[in-house]
Amino acid sequence: MAREASIENVAEQDLLALAAKALGSFGVKPDDANAAARILVMADMFGIHTHGVGRVASYGERLRIGGIAVSPEIRTEKPAPALAKVDGANGLGPVVGMHALQAAMAAARECGVGVAFASGSNHFGPISPYSYLAAQEGFASIIASNATTTIAPWGGSDARLGNNPMGFGIPHPGQDPILLDMAMSVVARAKIRRALELGQAIPDTWATDRAGRPTADPRAALDGFLLAIGGHKGYGLALMVDLFAGLLSGAAYLTHVKSWVDNPEAPQNLGHFFLLIDAKLLGSPTWLAQRIADFGAILHASPAADPAHPVIVPGEIEMRKFHQAEREGVPVEAKVMAELRALAG
Amino acid sequence: MAREASIENVAEQDLLALAAKALGSFGVKPDDANAAARILVMADMFGIHTHGVGRVASYGERLRIGGIAVSPEIRTEKPAPALAKVDGANGLGPVVGMHALQAAMAAARECGVGVAFASGSNHFGPISPYSYLAAQEGFASIIASNATTTIAPWGGSDARLGNNPMGFGIPHPGQDPILLDMAMSVVARAKIRRALELGQAIPDTWATDRAGRPTADPRAALDGFLLAIGGHKGYGLALMVDLFAGLLSGAAYLTHVKSWVDNPEAPQNLGHFFLLIDAKLLGSPTWLAQRIADFGAILHASPAADPAHPVIVPGEIEMRKFHQAEREGVPVEAKVMAELRALAG
Repeated sequence: MAREASIENVAEQDLLALAAKALGSFGVKPDDANAAARILVMADMFGIHTHGVGRVASYGERLRIGGIAVSPEIRTEKPAPALAKVDGANGLGPVVGMHALQAAMAAARECGVGVAFASGSNHFGPISPYSYLAAQEGFASIIASNATTTIAPWGGSDARLGNNPMGFGIPHPGQDPILLDMAMSVVARAKIRRALELGQAIPDTWATDRAGRPTADPRAALDGFLLAIGGHKGYGLALMVDLFAGLLSGAAYLTHVKSWVDNPEAPQNLGHFFLLIDAKLLGSPTWLAQRIADFGAILHASPAADPAHPVIVPGEIEMRKFHQAEREGVPVEAKVMAELRALAG
Repeated sequence: MAREASIENVAEQDLLALAAKALGSFGVKPDDANAAARILVMADMFGIHTHGVGRVASYGERLRIGGIAVSPEIRTEKPAPALAKVDGANGLGPVVGMHALQAAMAAARECGVGVAFASGSNHFGPISPYSYLAAQEGFASIIASNATTTIAPWGGSDARLGNNPMGFGIPHPGQDPILLDMAMSVVARAKIRRALELGQAIPDTWATDRAGRPTADPRAALDGFLLAIGGHKGYGLALMVDLFAGLLSGAAYLTHVKSWVDNPEAPQNLGHFFLLIDAKLLGSPTWLAQRIADFGAILHASPAADPAHPVIVPGEIEMRKFHQAEREGVPVEAKVMAELRALAG
């Protein structure tokens, strides 16, 4: 009851306008504010509230103290027809992300494939919104970003690697796309905190203690480092994301990425990687739609190990929430709505 | 002693010639036999002996019964400047793989980025050799293939997904590239077999029993399915590899992929995905070499949790073995050498 009372359902357009106005209160130009609001509102529509409009206040904090540039002059270079480099000029992450998405789309329209490397950026929200927008235009995508260091190298004992997210999108003509958006840790830190509150041990595959040793003690784990999925495999994936999104893009990487929390006033120089492929060149929309429907049907037909949890295809949960938000409004915490309204004035 | 006695060290060029001649004995044309031998010999040089010249006999078995085409007419189409589609015509996997690698390289030379989708293929060996060859020419790469179904969907209870490999390569001008080549299961089936032999329980994150329930019993696990890294995350990754390498390429996917073991005479119609990016367009060789050296140094400097196991960067072990094989010859089991010599006649 308390939980229900604290949620407001807000019409998508109203939330977009409110979030953009709130960002505008920090001096962000209308086009940029609209672009950033679009990504954050989509995050909430997908149910990824940790990356939704609740971020406006923390983005604003950094805009206010100069950690993020209010009026960045974002520049796009084309070293080759299918390749773009976007200098985000320390702008808001979602603004830089949308520039890079557009640059990769333009290159993919021209060449069939487009890659954009972005540098000089900040936290760009979740990946699903970008993958969704790409899929709506008929593009398959691989998108990734580096992040503040929170993970120890496999076998190491201090934080030198981000919990770098990687996302994939596959267009399904006339239907919802397949979307996967994942970070490389086994679990989020919040899950370890919950175990501590409940006085429960955790699997020793979730995290290490401060010395880099696997631990089942949630307290030691919170003092230590998240483990990546599959041990050395997830370590390798997180590192490859940083190589593509950070090192090759010309952005910061590994420990060169400044912490948002410890150095809020310093530019982070995060980097992103966008690969888009024009799926319309691979076959007709009917061909693609039939194959993707068949693909999903094969997976769904695997008898569930637990009948209460049928097999799902990545993105199904997010798209269900997305359509519900379109119909019934976007669920936002009342506390967040109050913040946004105060900022929008 | 028994182990040492069973290994021969063979000069790289001699092994290449012998493997090509052995493949030729099945009717494979010299160019194709050389291309396939090159990939298999490199696999042995990297220490990936499960995917090395020991495969010649099993490839040959399928060539002999018509499961793999002896003289495929491989066709490359260019739907757009940066995009190639390669129809492997049921040729040997490494032959189709090399065609796709060349097509992606040509597109990336022209456009900065090149993608090749291959269909009508077979087991194409490990990914590291392709990533290495791409890196030697200055290309960063993401390469993937689908495979025979051995993994149950997350929460499902029958094999509908391959243990699909994905590989990454980053060129390091004047030095060894960074290489990551991984399948999506937590462990290989062989590791579960070893636990059974030793009478040991296994972590319940490695595999499920036949009903799709996590199990610590190696016997039940061998009757069941390998689990993917990170549960639903590795499931999502394996599925994305199949979507790019299988579905978008026009190849078979999921359960449409025929089993090599159960249907050796049927074309598998496997698919591969090659993305190449010309890293020379992103900065000078000096710029790139300095950044990659710094990247490696940062990771290596993380104090090891276990001093006997310092932190490594993916590809270091493989490249060490590679150079040792260049100097001292490629280590091959005497049994495999005898097979190759018998075939080469």
